[in-house]
Amino acid sequence: MGKGYTGQVLRVNLSDRKITIEHPDDAFYRTYFGGRGLIAYYLYREVPGKADPLGPENKLIFAGGPLTGLPLAGSGRNSVGAKSPLTGAYGDAEAGGFWGAELKRAGFDAVIVEGQSSTPVYLWVHDGEAEIRPAGHLWGRLTAEVEKAIKEELGDSHLRVSQIGPAGEKLVRFATVVNDLTHFAGRSGLGAVMGSKKLRAIAVRGHQNVAVAEPEKIRELARWMGENYQQLVGGLQDTGTAGGVVSLSLSGGLPTRNFQQGSFEGAEKISGQAMRDTILVDRDNCYACPIHCKRVVKVEGTYEVDPVYGGPEYETVAALGSNCGIDDLKAIAKGNERCAALGMDTISTGVAISFAMEAFEKGILTLEDTGGLPLRFGDTTALLTMIERIGAREGLGDLLAEGAKRAAERIGRGAEELAIHVKGQEVPMHEPRLKHALGVGYAFSPTGADHVHNIHDTAYTREGASMREARSLGILQTMPADYLGPEKVRLLYYEVNWRHFMNLAELCIFVPWTREQVLELMKAATGWNTTTWELAKAGERAINLTRAFNLREGFTELDDRIPRRFFTAFKDGPLQGKAIPAEAFEAARQLYYDMMGWDEAGRPTAAKLHELGLGWLLGE
Amino acid sequence: MGKGYTGQVLRVNLSDRKITIEHPDDAFYRTYFGGRGLIAYYLYREVPGKADPLGPENKLIFAGGPLTGLPLAGSGRNSVGAKSPLTGAYGDAEAGGFWGAELKRAGFDAVIVEGQSSTPVYLWVHDGEAEIRPAGHLWGRLTAEVEKAIKEELGDSHLRVSQIGPAGEKLVRFATVVNDLTHFAGRSGLGAVMGSKKLRAIAVRGHQNVAVAEPEKIRELARWMGENYQQLVGGLQDTGTAGGVVSLSLSGGLPTRNFQQGSFEGAEKISGQAMRDTILVDRDNCYACPIHCKRVVKVEGTYEVDPVYGGPEYETVAALGSNCGIDDLKAIAKGNERCAALGMDTISTGVAISFAMEAFEKGILTLEDTGGLPLRFGDTTALLTMIERIGAREGLGDLLAEGAKRAAERIGRGAEELAIHVKGQEVPMHEPRLKHALGVGYAFSPTGADHVHNIHDTAYTREGASMREARSLGILQTMPADYLGPEKVRLLYYEVNWRHFMNLAELCIFVPWTREQVLELMKAATGWNTTTWELAKAGERAINLTRAFNLREGFTELDDRIPRRFFTAFKDGPLQGKAIPAEAFEAARQLYYDMMGWDEAGRPTAAKLHELGLGWLLGE
Repeated sequence: MGKGYTGQVLRVNLSDRKITIEHPDDAFYRTYFGGRGLIAYYLYREVPGKADPLGPENKLIFAGGPLTGLPLAGSGRNSVGAKSPLTGAYGDAEAGGFWGAELKRAGFDAVIVEGQSSTPVYLWVHDGEAEIRPAGHLWGRLTAEVEKAIKEELGDSHLRVSQIGPAGEKLVRFATVVNDLTHFAGRSGLGAVMGSKKLRAIAVRGHQNVAVAEPEKIRELARWMGENYQQLVGGLQDTGTAGGVVSLSLSGGLPTRNFQQGSFEGAEKISGQAMRDTILVDRDNCYACPIHCKRVVKVEGTYEVDPVYGGPEYETVAALGSNCGIDDLKAIAKGNERCAALGMDTISTGVAISFAMEAFEKGILTLEDTGGLPLRFGDTTALLTMIERIGAREGLGDLLAEGAKRAAERIGRGAEELAIHVKGQEVPMHEPRLKHALGVGYAFSPTGADHVHNIHDTAYTREGASMREARSLGILQTMPADYLGPEKVRLLYYEVNWRHFMNLAELCIFVPWTREQVLELMKAATGWNTTTWELAKAGERAINLTRAFNLREGFTELDDRIPRRFFTAFKDGPLQGKAIPAEAFEAARQLYYDMMGWDEAGRPTAAKLHELGLGWLLGE
Repeated sequence: MGKGYTGQVLRVNLSDRKITIEHPDDAFYRTYFGGRGLIAYYLYREVPGKADPLGPENKLIFAGGPLTGLPLAGSGRNSVGAKSPLTGAYGDAEAGGFWGAELKRAGFDAVIVEGQSSTPVYLWVHDGEAEIRPAGHLWGRLTAEVEKAIKEELGDSHLRVSQIGPAGEKLVRFATVVNDLTHFAGRSGLGAVMGSKKLRAIAVRGHQNVAVAEPEKIRELARWMGENYQQLVGGLQDTGTAGGVVSLSLSGGLPTRNFQQGSFEGAEKISGQAMRDTILVDRDNCYACPIHCKRVVKVEGTYEVDPVYGGPEYETVAALGSNCGIDDLKAIAKGNERCAALGMDTISTGVAISFAMEAFEKGILTLEDTGGLPLRFGDTTALLTMIERIGAREGLGDLLAEGAKRAAERIGRGAEELAIHVKGQEVPMHEPRLKHALGVGYAFSPTGADHVHNIHDTAYTREGASMREARSLGILQTMPADYLGPEKVRLLYYEVNWRHFMNLAELCIFVPWTREQVLELMKAATGWNTTTWELAKAGERAINLTRAFNLREGFTELDDRIPRRFFTAFKDGPLQGKAIPAEAFEAARQLYYDMMGWDEAGRPTAAKLHELGLGWLLGE
């Protein structure tokens, strides 16, 4: 086999300040690949069970994949992972941008951050080297200020920064890690882990070209995408990820007022189309991507927004908008800017606030609890004030900074019913009463409610790109969005495996690579004679590694649950009277376990672990 | 999707002489593909449980695959299937040659033969049409005579004939179906099913080019193989499939004297090299194949052999040679010729005779039983006489024509221990004490002991083509041939699925197409955006269909057993003292069940059936 495909992993211990470089072999990369696969491997092996997520035993891992850093649309991503302080389970999140590519060009596939520093520091990684530098002067400052300061301090305006904001410093449990100011490893509260280690940022700069087995093949595919993406991505470039807000509202699947409704009367006002026609000043992209789905907005006046922080994605528009009953796009843009500056996940922030708004409207929270702030749906002041208070951990904000689940448990008085989360992670902006299998996917996801490694049932109700892709795995027929029968579960099993592989490869799911092209890309990058079988199994392997991690933490099948709200019918709107049938949900969840080779308690069988080359887990 | 990939199935009822043509749709072909997939589907749906294999309820199905008939090395194969009279289980066998390609060029993917004729008939299929013709004048004649007679009668020297011989007429339970005189759907006793229907032959002639989605891609790959096969196939063309006899004997894996030994002192005399240097007069091929691995031999004198019947394969050399203790290549060639002329499977014939030889040497059979014939290992007269008697069902031959299992049961007196079979099918010429996982594969094979849809452990002990292919599925490390641990079972699970797909595709495993090329071929032929995942799952689907068939017939996990002999150590030779450890075997078999999603009784779980799109089996 020769040397094969290899790389470097940077290991930094912030307790003893030891820095080492490791060289995993070809078989390691071919087993764990990158992203969630690589992170789950290291977390399982190296973080002891029941470790405090915010203590020195937890590890924070940044990881790319085999395609990261190649001049290729969709390859500008990296994952960040740790045991999550939000869920207590395996945690990771992916971010786009330029930082991941820069890390690879600096010679590293991954950075493992261990221990805790006693004083604020940042890490400077450049062309195969790394140093720990003091960051006391950066502590407490907004993300844009910090990025600017680091660039000046190191004298390199082209370096890239992945960092936390003040919310991460204050251990807000849904604090994010921010790439390049505008790209977020939003979920799982990884910013709090970084904050607990007093690591404010990792600055990187690399000048190496990423070596691949077949560079001409990579160039050829990149060229193909450059020439064809426009007809494939529809309105993504024009209106961004929020381009579907109005149609989603019409279909009844737009989370509204803390998931009490699925349709929002102000949908048009907060849509991607409205954004394009009002506050949009530019379109941004990730490394090597021609699509430019990212927004850059500018607002002056009351809700002054600095375009350096980009603009809101769909998740943000819904989480801070419809789900808080807010139809003022400028206020949403302001909320987005503040979350970016403070380093907070907009989904969890929005759902924590919408939870509080519903609790306030239902009298569970009073003006006394809120420090005199009326917390009503639709109130932009309430939204923006609460974002500040969460970021500063002030008053009710300090409670909400613990996440909706913990907040509800402390409030009591029936508040738990209003906390829309899975395993403690707030539910993203996709409605399971519209997309039933997505709800099942929420339940078993290792990181709590997750919309990325999941299927969106509506995409399979008709012929189109998703059905074409499903067909490539042997699933031949379209099926309704509210169907939860065996064929849907099979689709879920196959596609969630594949979505996990896309994470391992760190390929963006918005770039319309077909499964066939992804295979070609992987072969060209690594030189492996790999197949869709091997890649899908690598995704399945990663799921099972995260599952093993969570089982060790004490999670059981009882944690694979979604909020009761989703089994309760909508009172109005396009889906009036519709809910997920609890029995069908339970049958589908169990059938998914069975297909995965998990027992009734959700534990992978020995045969499944052996089948995935994970037999070593049995000896642990 | 448009019309997609479609074809025609010819259905012929010999009871009422009704002939119909069916047009399955794209989804049918994409689910069952061809070969074992298609045959198992029809047999499960249409043959009632517990049907008499030799009665009118059984159906005999000839099927090609999506590549059959294309101008492509390895595509000249077809399967024949029915409920097996030898095992009472699902039965099929594959044959090379030219007949399958001709059938496809005549417009048909498959022929389903139903019912029974009261008088001998043959079927004449030509360019989309079919007719049943009388065959009384052909009955009882040798295969070469019949082929010649049909060609003369129909006035077409280019037509192709698939037929049975006199042994099939006499319902010898291991009678074969013969393509073009020299290619055999040898196993499962399908010739007896054909005989029971009084169908002597199917003659076909077609002038249609097989339409494919991307003809240029097919041509390109065919050209590539034409230019590269010689360096890839080693000595296959030079010495044929028997080229490995000597090295196999040296490694201890050459079945000798009814599997009592694994090494044969006369190995060199019966090797492919010896054949090349003595009796070989030509090398033959299958449709569109440049490799010419088939032998044509000519012998004059005592063992006069007519070259019209080709020459012996490895399986025949070992079954009639070493396994009967015979080192006379000319006698073996004569035995091969007679099996071809009479239409009998050389493996089962050889093992039935070696069984009788051992029984005779051990005094279980006497001269009284044998009609005065001394049945000793190494006795060429004994071998050739018994072949004639089996074919004619005379004396002890009539008993052996029932197969070694039934014969042993009737003889009693401990003879059962000497009948080397699985589910009633005699074990082919591969030694499980050398290749341990192959033994496990023998056990669960739906058709009884089978070496084609199986792995050969020795191929994975070193780097080479097999390891390269295993790696493409994510199995990265070589492993010993006598290792039966989880990684070997995983290899078995993955590769047996894939070997099944190769059957569905009707691609010859001797043509060194890589898995990647097979995928390209499938895409080019069908226009499907298929993946290795979909194809391997199609193979797994076919296994489960056959499993469902056998379960309905009353087979249980207790039938997934191999002869006790393989758990008994060799007394001499290179593997002296070696046997399969019974506990490791049992653990591996159970682990294979678990990986397959079969319960402890070997029944596919509902989840596994749903996962494969076979949920309809649950409603049956």
